[in-house]
Amino acid sequence: MESDTKAPERLIASDRVEGTAVYNKEDERLGSIERFMVDKASGQVEYAVMGFGGLFGLATRHYPLPWNALTYDTNRGGYIVNLSRDQLAEAPSYDPEAETPTYDRSYGERIYGYYGFTYL
Amino acid sequence: MESDTKAPERLIASDRVEGTAVYNKEDERLGSIERFMVDKASGQVEYAVMGFGGLFGLATRHYPLPWNALTYDTNRGGYIVNLSRDQLAEAPSYDPEAETPTYDRSYGERIYGYYGFTYL
Repeated sequence: MESDTKAPERLIASDRVEGTAVYNKEDERLGSIERFMVDKASGQVEYAVMGFGGLFGLATRHYPLPWNALTYDTNRGGYIVNLSRDQLAEAPSYDPEAETPTYDRSYGERIYGYYGFTYL
Repeated sequence: MESDTKAPERLIASDRVEGTAVYNKEDERLGSIERFMVDKASGQVEYAVMGFGGLFGLATRHYPLPWNALTYDTNRGGYIVNLSRDQLAEAPSYDPEAETPTYDRSYGERIYGYYGFTYL
């Protein structure tokens, strides 16, 4: 059998993406990944969509996060994003029961811009 | 509503990857995508795993394809890979019921090398 002590689980299967935890820099769990949005041609993930809410009558909201805004933390087994819990209320999000974003350029500029990144 | 005539469905959701068709350059359908294998840190798809078989008593085999070996064809709504049906019998594959590949460097070099690409 092959082995690689350096990076045994460097890759994640697309059907295992859902549920990966997302934390902020204060080590608070913000939510979990619902899905990645992948460029069909380049194979690059452009957004990770984070789900938050759904408890105690709160509606679940989905937060598209620019891939560049995420850092994978191998110790936690989850992603870190620079977003306080207070900021979460203001961050771009949508109700997945009611709408589906159109992932075009203007949306990309809005989402990437909100997190301080340039949408290329 | 936002619109973008250039690229209305440029992105694919990770939970919709399964079932995307894979054709060869002779326009023969080889199989369909089972999953993408995504680098957790970079967000780059490294492999697309194609499923083939499962009909008439044939066992289903999974073929890890280097991302670089795939070209997305917007007209067909599927991927093109340079692989004849005869070559399929010789291409690296595994029985998903019996084994799971370890996606390490030596595996990457083997798979990428088979299709004429350098594994970086």
